[in-house]
Amino acid sequence: MYVGKARAYTNIALIKYWGKKDERLILPMNSSLSLTLDAFYTETSVYFDKSLTEDLFVLDGKKQDSKQTAKISKFLDLIRQQQNLSLFARVDSQNFVPTAAGLASSASGLAALAGACSEALDLQLTETELSRLARRGSGSACRSIFGGFAEWQKGDSDQTSFAKAIPSEGWENELAMLFVLVDDGVKDISSRDGMKRTVETSSFYSGWLENVEADLAIAKEAIKERDFNKLGEVAEANGLRMHGTTLAAVPPFTYWSPESLNVMQLVRSARQAGLPCYFTMDAGPNVKILVEKKNLTALKNFLAEYLPEQKLITAFAGPGIEAIPIERSEDL
Amino acid sequence: MYVGKARAYTNIALIKYWGKKDERLILPMNSSLSLTLDAFYTETSVYFDKSLTEDLFVLDGKKQDSKQTAKISKFLDLIRQQQNLSLFARVDSQNFVPTAAGLASSASGLAALAGACSEALDLQLTETELSRLARRGSGSACRSIFGGFAEWQKGDSDQTSFAKAIPSEGWENELAMLFVLVDDGVKDISSRDGMKRTVETSSFYSGWLENVEADLAIAKEAIKERDFNKLGEVAEANGLRMHGTTLAAVPPFTYWSPESLNVMQLVRSARQAGLPCYFTMDAGPNVKILVEKKNLTALKNFLAEYLPEQKLITAFAGPGIEAIPIERSEDL
Repeated sequence: MYVGKARAYTNIALIKYWGKKDERLILPMNSSLSLTLDAFYTETSVYFDKSLTEDLFVLDGKKQDSKQTAKISKFLDLIRQQQNLSLFARVDSQNFVPTAAGLASSASGLAALAGACSEALDLQLTETELSRLARRGSGSACRSIFGGFAEWQKGDSDQTSFAKAIPSEGWENELAMLFVLVDDGVKDISSRDGMKRTVETSSFYSGWLENVEADLAIAKEAIKERDFNKLGEVAEANGLRMHGTTLAAVPPFTYWSPESLNVMQLVRSARQAGLPCYFTMDAGPNVKILVEKKNLTALKNFLAEYLPEQKLITAFAGPGIEAIPIERSEDL
Repeated sequence: MYVGKARAYTNIALIKYWGKKDERLILPMNSSLSLTLDAFYTETSVYFDKSLTEDLFVLDGKKQDSKQTAKISKFLDLIRQQQNLSLFARVDSQNFVPTAAGLASSASGLAALAGACSEALDLQLTETELSRLARRGSGSACRSIFGGFAEWQKGDSDQTSFAKAIPSEGWENELAMLFVLVDDGVKDISSRDGMKRTVETSSFYSGWLENVEADLAIAKEAIKERDFNKLGEVAEANGLRMHGTTLAAVPPFTYWSPESLNVMQLVRSARQAGLPCYFTMDAGPNVKILVEKKNLTALKNFLAEYLPEQKLITAFAGPGIEAIPIERSEDL
């Protein structure tokens, strides 16, 4: 039996990954940039065991159905093929999120799975190799290999598409991200389907691509210069542009709910009141607010007037992926 | 003294006018298509009188300040130049809107002014000539010369840019438009400024232009075929695309409020519940819902559960511009 376990943290893109160039290899249309966060993470154990007659996937203690398990098997197949291995595996995952807010992310999940497999089979991967492997599970997972700021360089092949850490001399530790939970319902359109429809049908998609590499350069400059407003401004504009592309998809759609727009307007109001903070959104209605730690309390106080407190989750910069020693009690 | 009076109705674009190619002549970047409505109109009298020493503009009984009057004077200057006339004028306008909901439109206002001037000076203009004249006051005013459906053919010069009626054999009389008043506050960004910023800075603007003539063709086809769903679908998609362009402007902006998005979602829900209706929005947060007359009551009942009734205004297809005999009591 080969056994391994890893913990990976989720990341939120400040310059968005939006569109695949290669669906199978998960090569993106554009490079992206993210901040890994401490508040949401996944711990995953994997057991390749000859006694198993099929793959098993247990998430938060519950055996998953064949559809969910098939996604995991697809990734395991890749590993088995690469390693010339013919064992089935049991995968045990736990998502650590402050509430059952539907914030479990495929980024932390697939990064942890990649890490656990690598540990189990003692693959001795470099960070770059692990990032490439995680990418095959879920694009944004390749960024969760790294703590703090990470850049996913789009590349043009399986070899050249991976994330790397962005040197920031610890500036990320002066930042915070406030999650405003707008809706815990199931998404209408997954990020996977949303980006696919947008790439294939939206007449705005070329406009998205036109700007995103320049946005990335500005974001990296801002990190280098520790210029919070510069980083926030480009992140907010980039996120709005990503969401704008969906309005020209055929048929058009949006991830925004009325409450999302309300929170976005509150962020603008806070800024007008002299409190620097910027929003970003992903393929769902929750709004994430980037703020400096020193202004976090002021921002919470500002929002408290308009939003119930239980809707807020605070996150700080998180670490990269970590291998975890397997405890005996977890053995099969 | 030259005196004339006219009444013009506002129109709502189903295929939007969004962007000027020539700011002075008000030539649009794209053709557009609208429905003239009966519920909102402007009556304007104009008096060219040698006893006046400056232009006067009285709106709803209140003398307007020099800034508002300057806009009117600019249009009067055009007339004076064309007619070699050196008289100042008094302009008396009344906006007829069901409530003080900030729905007064420059389309009905400038169309009525053009009509009043034409009457006063006995210009004997064809509808096309009157449409061209109204266009110089406010782009969308050129469509309010006509009742029912109108198409503003963009053209490429002052001579060739004008609206004309779209033959529909009275189909417009089977339709209704429900206005949902979301906010009566002052707009943050006027439609004029919004389209200017978008044309100049949005990387989505070329995507807008790419689709709009095809949208127009589909809308005209739908009118010809009396296909309500076809017309509604293309109108809704076109409106969303227009609003999407603003999200890539620099800086980005939106005309949507949380309540706008709520209403848009209600329209989608109504449709899912089997009630055909489609929304469109202009440069402000109000939402306009296109529905067949036969389904108007059902739509109102559906919305009544979620929206206060006083927020709704019903409009039907309206007539084209009309000259009005001047009453003696209105003389100076």
